[in-house]
Formats: sequence, C-alpha cells, structure tokens
Amino acid sequence: MTTARIVTAAMLAIGDELLSGRTKDKNIGHLAEMLTMVGIDLREVRIVADDEEAIVDAVNGLRGRYDHVFTSGGIGPTHDDITADAISRAFGVECVHDPEAMALLGAMYERRGMEFTDARRRMARMPVGATHISNPVSTAPGFRIANVYVMAGVPQVFQAMLDSLLPSLQTGTPVLSRTVRSPYGEGEIGGPLTEVQKKHPETSIGSYPKFDGKNFSTDIVIRARDAAVLAAAEVDVMAMIEAIARSR
Amino acid sequence: MTTARIVTAAMLAIGDELLSGRTKDKNIGHLAEMLTMVGIDLREVRIVADDEEAIVDAVNGLRGRYDHVFTSGGIGPTHDDITADAISRAFGVECVHDPEAMALLGAMYERRGMEFTDARRRMARMPVGATHISNPVSTAPGFRIANVYVMAGVPQVFQAMLDSLLPSLQTGTPVLSRTVRSPYGEGEIGGPLTEVQKKHPETSIGSYPKFDGKNFSTDIVIRARDAAVLAAAEVDVMAMIEAIARSR
Repeated sequence: MTTARIVTAAMLAIGDELLSGRTKDKNIGHLAEMLTMVGIDLREVRIVADDEEAIVDAVNGLRGRYDHVFTSGGIGPTHDDITADAISRAFGVECVHDPEAMALLGAMYERRGMEFTDARRRMARMPVGATHISNPVSTAPGFRIANVYVMAGVPQVFQAMLDSLLPSLQTGTPVLSRTVRSPYGEGEIGGPLTEVQKKHPETSIGSYPKFDGKNFSTDIVIRARDAAVLAAAEVDVMAMIEAIARSR
Repeated sequence: MTTARIVTAAMLAIGDELLSGRTKDKNIGHLAEMLTMVGIDLREVRIVADDEEAIVDAVNGLRGRYDHVFTSGGIGPTHDDITADAISRAFGVECVHDPEAMALLGAMYERRGMEFTDARRRMARMPVGATHISNPVSTAPGFRIANVYVMAGVPQVFQAMLDSLLPSLQTGTPVLSRTVRSPYGEGEIGGPLTEVQKKHPETSIGSYPKFDGKNFSTDIVIRARDAAVLAAAEVDVMAMIEAIARSR
C-alpha cells in the first residue's frame, strides 16, 4: 500500500441572494463532486453576504488552513460585486484594472459592437499579483492569487472556470467509494455497522437515511483511498446486511 | 417610519456527504427562505464534516456572534452521528440519554413492534439542559440548547422540525423585496444602478445575472424593511430601465 497524499480545500460562496433564499446555490455540490473526483478533500464551506468585512474574515480564516480555497460570486460589473476588492484587502495588496483582462474584454466588446462601459471595466479589476482563470463562457476572467481561486457565481461560468483551473492544481490520492443499499433503517443497522467501522479503521463508513414518506432505508457509503481496503470493508457490510435479513 | 428590529442567524450544516458531493444540500436554501419570511437575517452558513473538532469550533465560533444558530445533520442512530456529543462539548456539558426522548422513542418502537436497540437509543442523547424540538415525521426529537437549534439532515425531518421551532423564536422586522427584471446585462445597467443605490441608501439593491446559454439578462432585487422606502427605489429602478431602452 502506497502512502496517500492528502490535499485539502475550502469553498467560500459569496452572495446576499444565497442567504435570503432567493437563489439556491448550485456551485457547492458541483465543486464537491469535482474535487472528490480529482483527489482534493473539501473540508469546509462557508457562505457569506456581499459584505467586505465578512469576505475578508472568511478568506483569511480559510487560506492558511487549507491547501486550496475556491470562491464563487461577486465578480460581475455592478456595485454589489465587491469580491475583487475584498480579496485584495485580505492579501493587503491594491485592486487594479488588470491590463490583460482589459485587453480581452475590450476586444470582445468591440467585436460585439458594444460599449466598454465603466461597469464592464470593473470586471477587469483584480489584486496586484493575480493571474487569470480563463472564462470561455463570457470572457471576463476569474483570478487566482496564492492558493485562492476567485470564480463567478453564475453556475455555467463557475463550472467553465473550474474546468480550466483544475488541471493546474496540486491534487492528492483520490478517495474511492462504494455505496451499499440497505433496505433497513439506521436504527436496525446502527449497532452492527459500528462494529464493521471498528474492524476497518482505514475506511470511513457513512450511513445516509432515506425517507420515502413512510419508511426509512439507508445508503451505506464506504470510503477509502486504497482499493483493497475498500473491498474488504464492502464484503463485511454486505455480510452484515445478509445477517440482518436472516435474523428477521 | 418605525425602528427596525434586527435579529441575526447562522446555519451549520454537518455531514461528510455534503462535502464529498454525494448529497446536494437542500436545507440551507429552505432555511434561508423561511428565515427571510419571518424576519430573521441569515448572515452566514458553514458546512463541516462529521468531525467533532470541526463541529465544536464552528458552533463556538457562531453562537456568540449571532442571535440564533441552526444546525442540520448528524443526529441519527449510527456511529457517524456525533452532533449531540459535539454540541455537548461545545457547551461544556455532559451528553446523556434524555428521559423524555427515551420515553417517546420507546413508546413508538413498542407501537410498531420494533426492538428499541442501542443504536435507536442513541437518538435520545442530548446535552444536559437541552429541550426538545418536536419531530412529527419520525419521533426522534431535535433539541435546543441556549441559542443553538439542532435538527436532522433528512430534508423532510429538518423542515418539520423547523416548522415546530420557528413560532417560538425571537424574530425581527422582515425584509421586504421587489424584483425588477432587466432585459439588459449587468455591464449595461451597472453604471446607472450604482447611482440608484446611492440615492436610496436605506435599501440594498442586488443584481443577479442570468445566462440563457447565449445572452445575459439581470434580475434586480431591491430589499428594504420599510415599504415606502422600497417603493421609492423600485420607481427609480424602473425609470432607469426605461431610460436605457430609450437610448438604444
């Protein structure tokens, strides 16, 4: 068994609309899935308002603690888009119109016969020292500064930026998982499952109740970074379910 | 104009499955909508793993800062349900089998001819000093201790617990909102909208881009606690859109 490399991450979703319930976030779940796939452990997510203080506090609270920090939202052209300013302040650097982003946006608006308004120029602002995260959907780039990756809130744009960013990131050994469906509720499997977990300390076994409006069943999810370790635990989980079936 | 009463809240969603992407959270958006309706400002959300240290840190970081803290997840009968223990530790009290919860659950399992297993008894554990949040869906109660409300992760149960909890909470002056749909993207409205926001400092005006795969349009959301203040800003936002239409 080779040594697993652990790479961690946090996400910060930014936007009043997420906290008022007006918009239901779609980026957290997508990021979680993508990171799991490439072997980055998402350890914590925070959602804060379009509030400079709150963004600065959260970014500074997270970027020292995790290998990667992904943000969504607040990089558009309107007055409530303050993420670039907040990230600049978190890093103690100036927020400026990035020349390369200005050129990209300027050319795009010229092609489309549209005016490059002051509001649109706002989208080219980023902290001094930041580099671009490309945006094939709507041109205005996200940016990275140190281990913080600043992306759009619109899901199509967030996803496109993440696709262009991910190949460049340090990743770890992916966590493998198996799901075993149990027709029995958690109350029935809780005792024996605890024993299975104890027997397989290198796995993390989660149990997720499902409720169909009348009865509970359970999805048992086994996670491990090593395939053989995972398979051994899966055998014991299945044996446990068969034992419950026989005893009824 | 009467003085608005501001009541704040945070949410802590607990569960490995939310961070692996296996489960897409549905409770955050629901809580956000419900709190907005009753006049509680949701200011921050965190998602952490089934990890005692992470839960304790988050709860203690949030409960002093906001009037209310709502948690979801980790109160079932299996080994990975550690929320009751973590909340007890956060408050420095013991985690015990609550006699009333034991009676409720015992009676329910007897009625259904099911064994009251050790795993099921686990669901009756809560910090000393906690009181129940009733659970009409599946009996096992959530609990409140001081300003922290601990609820289930299964959305149907979370929602039922929230319904039984909300009427007992201190609420504030609700935020009213109006949405004005703009056929123009943020780049076009960004400049004039900044002026409208400046003219109406008692409102909070948000601008939410929508992307149909080809073009951006914008939902402009005006929020205020006073109806007259809201209406005045709405008039100016509509006038702004008409002015853009005329200028094209």
